[in-house]
Amino acid sequence: MADTQLTSDVPEAVAPSGVYDADGFVDGAFLERVEAAIEGENPAYLREEVGRLHESELGDLLEALDNDARQSLVRLMGDEFDYTALTEVDEAIRLSIVDAMPNAQVAEALRELDSDDAVYILEDLDEEDRKEILDRLPFRERIRLRRSLEYPEESAGRRMQTEFVAVPPFWTVGQTIDYMRDEEELPESFAQIFVIDPSFKLQGAVDLDRILRAKRPEKIEDIMHETRHAIPAEMDQEEAAQIIEQYDLLSAAVVDENERLVGILTIDDVIDILQQEADEDIKRLGGVGDEEISDTVLTAARSRFSWLLINLATAILASCVIGLFDATIEQMVALAILMPIVASMGGNAGTQTMTVAVRALAARDIDLYNAGRIIRREALVGLLNGVLFALIIGLVAAVWFESAGLGGVIAVAMVVNMMAAALAGILIPLVLDRFGADPAIASGTFVTTVTDVVGFFAFLGLAAFWFGLG
Amino acid sequence: MADTQLTSDVPEAVAPSGVYDADGFVDGAFLERVEAAIEGENPAYLREEVGRLHESELGDLLEALDNDARQSLVRLMGDEFDYTALTEVDEAIRLSIVDAMPNAQVAEALRELDSDDAVYILEDLDEEDRKEILDRLPFRERIRLRRSLEYPEESAGRRMQTEFVAVPPFWTVGQTIDYMRDEEELPESFAQIFVIDPSFKLQGAVDLDRILRAKRPEKIEDIMHETRHAIPAEMDQEEAAQIIEQYDLLSAAVVDENERLVGILTIDDVIDILQQEADEDIKRLGGVGDEEISDTVLTAARSRFSWLLINLATAILASCVIGLFDATIEQMVALAILMPIVASMGGNAGTQTMTVAVRALAARDIDLYNAGRIIRREALVGLLNGVLFALIIGLVAAVWFESAGLGGVIAVAMVVNMMAAALAGILIPLVLDRFGADPAIASGTFVTTVTDVVGFFAFLGLAAFWFGLG
Repeated sequence: MADTQLTSDVPEAVAPSGVYDADGFVDGAFLERVEAAIEGENPAYLREEVGRLHESELGDLLEALDNDARQSLVRLMGDEFDYTALTEVDEAIRLSIVDAMPNAQVAEALRELDSDDAVYILEDLDEEDRKEILDRLPFRERIRLRRSLEYPEESAGRRMQTEFVAVPPFWTVGQTIDYMRDEEELPESFAQIFVIDPSFKLQGAVDLDRILRAKRPEKIEDIMHETRHAIPAEMDQEEAAQIIEQYDLLSAAVVDENERLVGILTIDDVIDILQQEADEDIKRLGGVGDEEISDTVLTAARSRFSWLLINLATAILASCVIGLFDATIEQMVALAILMPIVASMGGNAGTQTMTVAVRALAARDIDLYNAGRIIRREALVGLLNGVLFALIIGLVAAVWFESAGLGGVIAVAMVVNMMAAALAGILIPLVLDRFGADPAIASGTFVTTVTDVVGFFAFLGLAAFWFGLG
Repeated sequence: MADTQLTSDVPEAVAPSGVYDADGFVDGAFLERVEAAIEGENPAYLREEVGRLHESELGDLLEALDNDARQSLVRLMGDEFDYTALTEVDEAIRLSIVDAMPNAQVAEALRELDSDDAVYILEDLDEEDRKEILDRLPFRERIRLRRSLEYPEESAGRRMQTEFVAVPPFWTVGQTIDYMRDEEELPESFAQIFVIDPSFKLQGAVDLDRILRAKRPEKIEDIMHETRHAIPAEMDQEEAAQIIEQYDLLSAAVVDENERLVGILTIDDVIDILQQEADEDIKRLGGVGDEEISDTVLTAARSRFSWLLINLATAILASCVIGLFDATIEQMVALAILMPIVASMGGNAGTQTMTVAVRALAARDIDLYNAGRIIRREALVGLLNGVLFALIIGLVAAVWFESAGLGGVIAVAMVVNMMAAALAGILIPLVLDRFGADPAIASGTFVTTVTDVVGFFAFLGLAAFWFGLG
């Protein structure tokens, strides 16, 4: 987060040297010096050396320290600790630090932060702490933060920054420049100013370079552009981020239900949101929900349990299919030896197709008009690779078990399962997406269930038929 | 790409209405009107209705059309076609459009583009076409583009924009503003100006809001900040993007080996690069390389083949393990029925751990100092879920095959394989990363090989031992 830092103005003695090693990890020697200063209760050193870090560097340092050292660091640094760094660490670390602080101190810390960073920290706290902290804040800040917190989680209203520059349309460029020169209470950094009428209704926006290139007597309303992409505060953060990304905006106005300007979303929020969403997609495809590396053993085990339980159910289903052919296997053990190959190849081919489909859906590259074309393409890819691998595995099996018949059976089963994999890999995400489900979270199980069941059934069924077994 | 569009100044009658439907796909009715106009050879309608689209909207439209319609659209629109849209589509589509155009026309089109967009289009063309097109460009543009193209692929120098505003340090704020008001040849939009000495050596940068807030007589050198995060042109684009993201910069200076300013990287380039890298990670984890949804059947089949071939080898390895116990299975077919469950659960648990590890490595959240802690955590999660699922599957197997012994054997095998999965899932990505390999691309195969081999060996071996079979 930390979007008012939209600037290249990074503290003096910081990176590129000192904090990170050549691989981009927190430098070992630096970390040891900090740990020594924490153990030796040396606040002077910490305030000096850690106090000048950029918030993101401080965040990385916090993540590299163990929990006790983190708490001590915050305590020893006192006022010199930059609480913005809390927006740069995992939720578990953030909570462990904030929960260890008295509410009065949290309130004091939040006053120094931009509204969006303060909301980011407040939203994870429990109801009671949040209320007590808000009550300790001055009236204006309390109102602003409460309003943001009233918008739904992961909405534009939650992520917006309520500090911005807004001027009336009838001002001249000269008046606007003079206002910016004299006004003390401006955001730390900004790239755009907004134009509003007396009721705060959004009229337009002007980029700073446009103001700099205009003559002083020009009216703001003559150089502003309409803000066609005002973001409703209730809008999902991902949708808002995609709009800002698509139209290459530096910042976008966030408006309430009466089209009044209530905040702005800046492009670095967008980066955070898009990174977070990509991270979610990857983790969902891997079956690990919203887990973070700093979660406790119990949290991680619990969040993975449900996914594994679903997988167990589908694995038992596949075993039932094998169970249908127990007599066949008893007469020909080679089938038991070879059957995982057919299932595994199908599973991998299905995962490949599914990965492409999930990404294309996320990028809106598949729609009604090209779905047919893409399904045909996947079926053809499945057929092509199916035939190639059928030849390879057919040959391997025939030589291994000295049976041309067995080679033929596994070859046919391979083609069948690779085709099934291709179709399941493309159709399951499409159907889930059509019904409003997130294809990233559920496709994997369904696809491998199909390829396991089809793989075992095709191979064992064909073998039973061909060799007259069972 | 298209970073000089860093502005909210989106053409009038465009989105939110018209181009997209409620789900964010290209609107069906709009698409049909465009297709009808293409078929009816109606350039007037296309120039009007398609001509006013934002480049990203035009890109989405191109992706929704079939190949013939795309070519016709470009031809019919003539000068009104915004070639920047080519930076918004998949490589296969971009090449099919550019290859169909005479080189003279491509050169003409590139002249209208920003340098980075022009490079983006040129870099995919074959040597000969590229040379001919460059030769047709005016001297200054040719030099600029050649210099960018000389930097390695995916380097900052390739992605940079060579249009920027730079002034000497001794200028006053007033001089600078007057220069910007009068100069015609400025970039379309910019958020920062750079400060250089007579030899083009980078001295610093000033954000526009800083200039607006300064008095006219102030010297630029007094309000500029040192650019601590100048990006060497040879630097990998991902590394450059991470620096800009970490320090929340709006744009960063790109310098050559003599520290002379040669271009800038803007934050919307960063978004594109980060998105591209996340996409690559997801696809590598899914085993599909750099494939795009618009790739041909042959390209896609070929790119997936090698991954499937590796998987075939590991599947055969697992089969060999089963083959060691063929006599055991012959005497107890239940083992063949149950063995895929042990392997499948291990594979899924391993994939979960691996996904978390790969993401944490990408975010530099794992380092030497916490690796031990994280390995212990994963082992504990594996043990915990291993014991839980051992109880469940042990009970299921005991009831299903009416054998407490079989239940006990599968339970123990499950704990063993879940532990193996946890350790493989964390250690394999760590080791790959340590040796400079991309853990996203290779971990999956290794992890499932381990869980298959350990799963089959533990289950069948324990059974052979316990029941005295084989």
